[in-house]
Amino acid sequence: MDNDDLRRGMPTNHIKYGEAMALLAGDTLLNYAFENIANAKAEPKLIVEMLKIISSASGANGMIGGQVVDIQGAKTYEELITMHKMKTGELISVSAKVGAIASGADSPQFEKITAYAENLGLAFQIRDDLLDVEGDEEALGKPIGSDEVSGKCTFVNFLGIDGAKLALNEYTTRAKQSLEIFGDKAEFLLDLADYLLKRQK
Amino acid sequence: MDNDDLRRGMPTNHIKYGEAMALLAGDTLLNYAFENIANAKAEPKLIVEMLKIISSASGANGMIGGQVVDIQGAKTYEELITMHKMKTGELISVSAKVGAIASGADSPQFEKITAYAENLGLAFQIRDDLLDVEGDEEALGKPIGSDEVSGKCTFVNFLGIDGAKLALNEYTTRAKQSLEIFGDKAEFLLDLADYLLKRQK
Repeated sequence: MDNDDLRRGMPTNHIKYGEAMALLAGDTLLNYAFENIANAKAEPKLIVEMLKIISSASGANGMIGGQVVDIQGAKTYEELITMHKMKTGELISVSAKVGAIASGADSPQFEKITAYAENLGLAFQIRDDLLDVEGDEEALGKPIGSDEVSGKCTFVNFLGIDGAKLALNEYTTRAKQSLEIFGDKAEFLLDLADYLLKRQK
Repeated sequence: MDNDDLRRGMPTNHIKYGEAMALLAGDTLLNYAFENIANAKAEPKLIVEMLKIISSASGANGMIGGQVVDIQGAKTYEELITMHKMKTGELISVSAKVGAIASGADSPQFEKITAYAENLGLAFQIRDDLLDVEGDEEALGKPIGSDEVSGKCTFVNFLGIDGAKLALNEYTTRAKQSLEIFGDKAEFLLDLADYLLKRQK
């Protein structure tokens, strides 16, 4: 299902196949991540190291825990930050960490790439909240204003549109600064940060 | 929540905490299994070996796939066997396999312990179907006859009560025979097979 399908109102998994099947599809994909890790072409020691940080990032202290906080509703700015760090930040961050481990990064490099990913994760989320307020429905492929309708707590609620834009720039700058030690080799990651800063969808 | 709670009609997770939270609790537990494997006190090579067979047993070709077959409804006796082998059999079997790997079993030992677990898994399920027909509600802690009400396809449907009892004995015997090469060391597993053969709940 691509964005065109979304615009045409194609149903989501649980509408089309029922809640039980949609739930099992989700379980399958979560499980499939671990099947993939198990069969990675890498040294067992590295696989176990990756398994540790990936399973932690997706579990109660990461993505799933962040979803619980989201359902309960973040009440303060600190809770909003915590929720996003857990819900999406941990997985964005672990993607960078796994790459660092696979390429044999040293400890300072590991810390810098982690800082990049953590700041990028928050920038990504702020851009998301801004797009829901002032995005273009056609480009976005879904209706805007849905956060306000659902009463969802967002960066725009706490900081206002201008404040959220300042925060977006600040986190993007921090992300890019974290990459300085990598020099030219960081070009793709720097471009990615700029792309996310300006994305329309 | 113990059997007394069940008899008093204590609600299940999704009734008490809502479907979203129950779903996340399930995801958390599935994920937590892999967090546990990642942090097992064992050689990385063994951990990866265990991760391979556990993630496969719980995924689309095992537990989750079996649940899909269950929801779609097994129509033939072969589908019923396939469904149970996937849904519960794979996890019972992998429990035995992981123990075999951890204790350094050789290839014939590994095959025998696997055969034990596969036959035990089917015996367990046949006993389950029989208890739903002629079990004691007080001992069982839940109403009997629920399979008939829900139109579920069971061993009793296909084989009748007497046929199911014969099959139960046959699978239990096969399970126990698989353990012959282990001699006295298999005492616990033999007792377990006998216990499951006669269990009332």
